[in-house]
Amino acid sequence: MARKILVLGAGKSTSYLIDYFLDKASAQNLHLTIGDLHPSTISSNITQHPNCTVFKLDILEDGARKDAVNKADIVVSMLPARLHSKVAYDCISSRKHLVTASYVSDEIRTLDKEAKATGLVFMNEVGLDPGIDHMSAMEVIDRIHAAGGKMLLFESFTGGLVAPENDTNLWNYKFTWNPRNVVVAGQGGTAKFIQEGTYKYIPYHKLFRRTEFLDIQGYGTFEGYANRDSLWYREAYGLQDVLTLYRGTMRRVGFSRAWNMFVQLGMTDDGYHIEDSNGMSYRAFVNLFLPYSPTDSVELKLRHYLKIDQDDIMWEKLEELDLFSREKTISIENATPAQALQEILENSWTLGDDEKDMIVMYHKFGYELNGKKKQLDANMVVLGENRNHTAMAKTVGLPVAMATLNILDKKITTPGVQIPISKEIYEPILKELKTYGIQFNEFQVPYLGYNPDSVAS
Amino acid sequence: MARKILVLGAGKSTSYLIDYFLDKASAQNLHLTIGDLHPSTISSNITQHPNCTVFKLDILEDGARKDAVNKADIVVSMLPARLHSKVAYDCISSRKHLVTASYVSDEIRTLDKEAKATGLVFMNEVGLDPGIDHMSAMEVIDRIHAAGGKMLLFESFTGGLVAPENDTNLWNYKFTWNPRNVVVAGQGGTAKFIQEGTYKYIPYHKLFRRTEFLDIQGYGTFEGYANRDSLWYREAYGLQDVLTLYRGTMRRVGFSRAWNMFVQLGMTDDGYHIEDSNGMSYRAFVNLFLPYSPTDSVELKLRHYLKIDQDDIMWEKLEELDLFSREKTISIENATPAQALQEILENSWTLGDDEKDMIVMYHKFGYELNGKKKQLDANMVVLGENRNHTAMAKTVGLPVAMATLNILDKKITTPGVQIPISKEIYEPILKELKTYGIQFNEFQVPYLGYNPDSVAS
Repeated sequence: MARKILVLGAGKSTSYLIDYFLDKASAQNLHLTIGDLHPSTISSNITQHPNCTVFKLDILEDGARKDAVNKADIVVSMLPARLHSKVAYDCISSRKHLVTASYVSDEIRTLDKEAKATGLVFMNEVGLDPGIDHMSAMEVIDRIHAAGGKMLLFESFTGGLVAPENDTNLWNYKFTWNPRNVVVAGQGGTAKFIQEGTYKYIPYHKLFRRTEFLDIQGYGTFEGYANRDSLWYREAYGLQDVLTLYRGTMRRVGFSRAWNMFVQLGMTDDGYHIEDSNGMSYRAFVNLFLPYSPTDSVELKLRHYLKIDQDDIMWEKLEELDLFSREKTISIENATPAQALQEILENSWTLGDDEKDMIVMYHKFGYELNGKKKQLDANMVVLGENRNHTAMAKTVGLPVAMATLNILDKKITTPGVQIPISKEIYEPILKELKTYGIQFNEFQVPYLGYNPDSVAS
Repeated sequence: MARKILVLGAGKSTSYLIDYFLDKASAQNLHLTIGDLHPSTISSNITQHPNCTVFKLDILEDGARKDAVNKADIVVSMLPARLHSKVAYDCISSRKHLVTASYVSDEIRTLDKEAKATGLVFMNEVGLDPGIDHMSAMEVIDRIHAAGGKMLLFESFTGGLVAPENDTNLWNYKFTWNPRNVVVAGQGGTAKFIQEGTYKYIPYHKLFRRTEFLDIQGYGTFEGYANRDSLWYREAYGLQDVLTLYRGTMRRVGFSRAWNMFVQLGMTDDGYHIEDSNGMSYRAFVNLFLPYSPTDSVELKLRHYLKIDQDDIMWEKLEELDLFSREKTISIENATPAQALQEILENSWTLGDDEKDMIVMYHKFGYELNGKKKQLDANMVVLGENRNHTAMAKTVGLPVAMATLNILDKKITTPGVQIPISKEIYEPILKELKTYGIQFNEFQVPYLGYNPDSVAS
């Protein structure tokens, strides 16, 4: 009898995930069931595949959802993170394994005891970031520890960008994923990390001015800004004594300085609603954040407020977005500033039908071995194939799919709510990912500690 | 039989309030009962006054509190705002009038119907700000309307500062009230107002860079930064069609630019706890917010980060606080940055025993009358007498006391949850306040609309 995999949610991150299962379906004796709110948007090569069943499912309908979970051997939830918990409760009561690419929520965490008691694997954070970042980092950290090394520094950066051949605007950025996450990035709270044993805190309004540079051979220079809470990883990765722990997001150089203009103006705020936003011109939107003047132009007020020199490229970046247009208008009722800004950006930054995305990841591992301080850098670049088969869908979907099959094959057996940081999990997945071209290049570099520019001077 | 006034909470804002009642006690046949958690801190000329009873009251003990309310004819709550609602419920069930100097909370607002049905006056916002600001503004607005004028502009600013003779530090500021309110000022949300018919929004990190100047004859120049939500006053003051509505806080010129350094660094954040704060030097605290460097000093990093020139007075303001001290330390466990900053500031900014405070208020009323645009400015300065009889206690306590007596005397009879914006309330109180030296000076000035600098140029 076929082994039954239930995939909940067939959004744009699931193309590779579904292809993976269907490619192996007959050899591995799999049957895939896909429950989605809009099954008509799923392509016919999936819906008509002999080992696949697609059905319409509203995840909030308890009966239908429980029924689908009950019929499966394992459940893969690719739903928005807030919807996982309902599925997780069903998995507990029906005794099914669960795989997601999302951060472990407090609600899911409470199920750990029951999952362990009933021998269920609840695998989370097994996509790209979180996912491949955990696995690739732990592989190196375990290797350093096994050789008798002591970890001193861990920095890790990930970015979802546009492929070089389609990198055609002044921002070197297009939306390849959820635009909203980009607009509100960094707003969850002060960024916290540790550098050479000193705690460091960056408030949101300074986040995009405290970047560091990263080079990837063949791809040029990138910059990284700090993610919200790096301190959590001390516990998760067993790095309690590490001097430097920093996680960040990668962008092309100059993006953060330009993005900071929106932050400074207050345009990324998602906490209140603008009066009369529907039909408001982009120009009037900008003027909401500038002092009143009966005579001065929006342009001059903005230049003065943000101290933008006449020949600063920042200005062209704003003009490229038509930010001062009197004709282009916001079309959202009672928009928050963030929603209005998102609409303006989507007008410029949408990936074209024939354009490709790119995923970059960069780790730095500083350590002491045999009395010497050393550093290993590892980076990964994955390019998308097309708008449907993106590098994002590939790097999120494949590790989820591999983890799912490994659980079914009983290669992963440790029960409980977990993330992929043990060798049992990451070793086979990283090995298999290489066959799909997802792999890290490693470089031994001099250990300079944090802030090498200052040390070298 | 004496008329019984219950005062809950005898903190530092209540000296004038209590004196007012006791001065009038025998002529007006009043008996004052004071319930406080720490009655031993109340001075003997109050506790031994023949018309006064002081007792220990924990406001969270329902029985004792209800009992005290039940015995009174009217209740004055000078408790922290969050504690008013318990008292308000008691007042409803015991059928007693209530007076507070605090903003109407949502909880209190829900009692409006019951208060009206039972003929009770629930008078709120009858201190200084809110309080005297409402009354003095409505007095002028009603006068302009009565003369057939149409309101165009209303701006209003209040500040609690140090008296000129004791204005001895570079910040021109000392704590004369709750220091915590000063440290977290502006953090409740984006500032919203309207200027010449255009909505304007200022994010917190720009709030202290968007000030305007105000002159008061004999007292020099002040600056004002925007309060959180000015739009609410359109409804309250009946100014729905006004083109400019702006409320702000007054400081001496230069305070806001200097305060902005703390905001930019992230030191005013109250949303997370610092690791190992207890025993941390002021210098190490500053370094939490600066990039790591193995060589550069905290001083140079801060100068560079905030772009402070060598000869900028901002620098001396920081040094005056001993901000770079290796010896002075934070003494709070797990302090938030705001709590740590407060401790540092209290070390420098505490009002001396023989020092005096000062209250300033400034209103601008723009209006059209007989086809001509006009402007009336009104301002008030009140100086404290000593550390116990402060200008703050005087301007908060006296209007509360007067409103209380006017309710007892049935001069204020309109029932319900309310603020002092009707003539019935403000006219007698403003008149009586004059006899205590609390009065406004009015000046007819040319109407320049908002942002007069630009218009004049």
